[in-house]
Amino acid sequence: MERYAEKSTEELRLIYGSLLSEFEKYKSLGLSLDLSRGKPNSSQLDISEGLLSVDVSGKGAYSAAGLDCRNYGVVDGLPEAKRFFGEVYGIPEEKIIVGGNSSLQLMYDTLARAMLFGVPGSVRPWCRESGLKWICVVPGYDRHFRVTESLGFELVSVNMTPDGPDMDAVEELVRDPSVKGIWCVPKYSNPTGNTYSDEVVRRLASMRCAAPDFRIMWDNAYAVHSLEGEGDRLLDIFAEAERCGNGDRVLYFASTSKVTFPGGGVAIMAMSEENRRWALKHIGTQTIGFDKLNQLRHLKFFGTAENLMAHMSRLGSAIKAKFDIVAECLSVLSGLGIAEWTNPRGGYFVSLDVMPGTARRVFALMREAGVTLTAVGATYPYGIDPEDKNLRLAPTYPTNEELRTATEILTVAVRMAAIEKLLA
Amino acid sequence: MERYAEKSTEELRLIYGSLLSEFEKYKSLGLSLDLSRGKPNSSQLDISEGLLSVDVSGKGAYSAAGLDCRNYGVVDGLPEAKRFFGEVYGIPEEKIIVGGNSSLQLMYDTLARAMLFGVPGSVRPWCRESGLKWICVVPGYDRHFRVTESLGFELVSVNMTPDGPDMDAVEELVRDPSVKGIWCVPKYSNPTGNTYSDEVVRRLASMRCAAPDFRIMWDNAYAVHSLEGEGDRLLDIFAEAERCGNGDRVLYFASTSKVTFPGGGVAIMAMSEENRRWALKHIGTQTIGFDKLNQLRHLKFFGTAENLMAHMSRLGSAIKAKFDIVAECLSVLSGLGIAEWTNPRGGYFVSLDVMPGTARRVFALMREAGVTLTAVGATYPYGIDPEDKNLRLAPTYPTNEELRTATEILTVAVRMAAIEKLLA
Repeated sequence: MERYAEKSTEELRLIYGSLLSEFEKYKSLGLSLDLSRGKPNSSQLDISEGLLSVDVSGKGAYSAAGLDCRNYGVVDGLPEAKRFFGEVYGIPEEKIIVGGNSSLQLMYDTLARAMLFGVPGSVRPWCRESGLKWICVVPGYDRHFRVTESLGFELVSVNMTPDGPDMDAVEELVRDPSVKGIWCVPKYSNPTGNTYSDEVVRRLASMRCAAPDFRIMWDNAYAVHSLEGEGDRLLDIFAEAERCGNGDRVLYFASTSKVTFPGGGVAIMAMSEENRRWALKHIGTQTIGFDKLNQLRHLKFFGTAENLMAHMSRLGSAIKAKFDIVAECLSVLSGLGIAEWTNPRGGYFVSLDVMPGTARRVFALMREAGVTLTAVGATYPYGIDPEDKNLRLAPTYPTNEELRTATEILTVAVRMAAIEKLLA
Repeated sequence: MERYAEKSTEELRLIYGSLLSEFEKYKSLGLSLDLSRGKPNSSQLDISEGLLSVDVSGKGAYSAAGLDCRNYGVVDGLPEAKRFFGEVYGIPEEKIIVGGNSSLQLMYDTLARAMLFGVPGSVRPWCRESGLKWICVVPGYDRHFRVTESLGFELVSVNMTPDGPDMDAVEELVRDPSVKGIWCVPKYSNPTGNTYSDEVVRRLASMRCAAPDFRIMWDNAYAVHSLEGEGDRLLDIFAEAERCGNGDRVLYFASTSKVTFPGGGVAIMAMSEENRRWALKHIGTQTIGFDKLNQLRHLKFFGTAENLMAHMSRLGSAIKAKFDIVAECLSVLSGLGIAEWTNPRGGYFVSLDVMPGTARRVFALMREAGVTLTAVGATYPYGIDPEDKNLRLAPTYPTNEELRTATEILTVAVRMAAIEKLLA
């Protein structure tokens, strides 16, 4: 394939004509497809179907220690649930708090608490400071960005590299005491799908932060979401941070939303003893306890961490088929010099960088053809992609056939938009 | 019975001697009883046992409108859940937001949100104001008090009357713009068990508040918890408040914690359109959605609001037996002029006022005899009962036999403490 930039105007016009007729053909089909939603489709959910029939009546409602889980009590989670998730995530069970169904809610509440009361190490509640900033790795997860934006932080972007955040930029930023933290999806990051390298994890754990109460929001949402085999290996940030005396810096989150059901899973967080004491003091005012029966249902459904991993490998196969379709379709863009994309070994997304200045045009063309993409800019703070180039592809929700059609149209739109730009 | 105050020292000494020997007899039994916990016992929970086996697999996981409830979506609750709870609580379904398992959490989060962002009508976030106050009806619910205390409010007490809060005192207090709200358990109040009169509800709904963003936290925790028959009737505060143009004043909360299971129920809140828009804007940042599968389980278990009411009448009978035991045992204190107590027609508690200055002594005597009571002062802000007289009795958790023994000992301790005081 020859790079578009090296082609003559004549050649580009010719290619555009043929792309346009292909595009018109797709348009005439009156499609309505959706590549925007990072959610499992029904057949992926069917893999967890057994959870919907789990019976926790009789002795099933009692914890191993004999606690009646139908009743009040145990604000930090059942001991066996902490042990189970400790094994699944490879973190010490004593660091874990088992919450409700939403890890986003645990993150939001943690930061809301920091605003109202400060965290261990804070001089005052964060809401009494001004000009607070938060580091957002871009492209990244819009829901994260929205939480810190709504709480009043100025969002500061740092670029994602294949190894994780650009650590030179991060280390420079944290010399400013008004920079209070960073959002991280360290494994199969949303949307690039890459995993932080050991060096990046070590630098995050050890870097010197001017804010005495700096926090890393470590959202390990895709910890067990490999497409095949063992998948990527992520360094244990707790061990690294503790070695440097920065154990309080790390706030770890995860959930079974994309393991079992987004509509009824179990979320956890994990943190140092000092952070845990702080969090539980406030959580103990906020609630008498989270849903223990759903903890029991999950424990009964999986039995062991090994079974969960086997379950994830079935899920991974189903999702890999979709990622393969995307990779195969996108390959027609290879060598044209107008697009770059990721080939993740796990997670939920493919990140596609089109020619700078054309992402919004691609989005508009796709809409014309009946395909919804994630809004351009969604992966950047304030919804603004400064280079207008990143598109987040979410392959999981459509059927394989829908996915193939949508991605084929996408490659047409990407090429059309690039030529329009080159000819402008 | 003759009043103790009218007895001679001689007579009182005689009575005390006989009480003391009775007390020593109880002590020698080496009991370990608990009247402190406002939680259902296992046999009450057994009435909801069927919920633990509800199967929501297959078509069971889909909403009436065909939504796959296993997946993401629907942040404000399933339409059929809103309809169901609207019927149960007699409030418009369009006011309802269905949350997780904890109404306390919905209340805490609502007030945390007010602190961080203000509410409709606020000039600024509450955390940017100083000297904020909150009205606490006493005796009242310690968990409520703790929420507003932790958020930095000064807690101001208003006495409970048989008709609800002393409204003259409330109306006086709300002339102060730093008074931002009031905690109310309007039906079968915790711990007095009385229900607000129509006049009290009307005055709360219509009173003129200096704070433009005053809020009534209307925790209707015992809305459907009558011991027998129809139970008390509570006026619809939404209708009253709207009539006066104060619709935004009311924030309504309830849950199935004491309908089905404290460890895995469903909580709701209800509010005006303006409040709802405000709440959902922030909830939509906080979470992608609450547990929809547990909403479905509850809907499938009950089917109709009528079935829930029939369920509550079974539960009411079980609890009434316990309240009857307490009333029967306490009757030996009648006419002695040393104690007053409530005879609720619903709810979870009996409130016992002993001779002022003796509640802590009663608590200590009970502990000596192996019976745990709710901490004296728990029903007051900051844990301080200014008259040292109120004891909250929680009859539901012990077995009937344990309850009878514990309450019998209690009457002995109440009399001993009163005589000690009179003879001092």
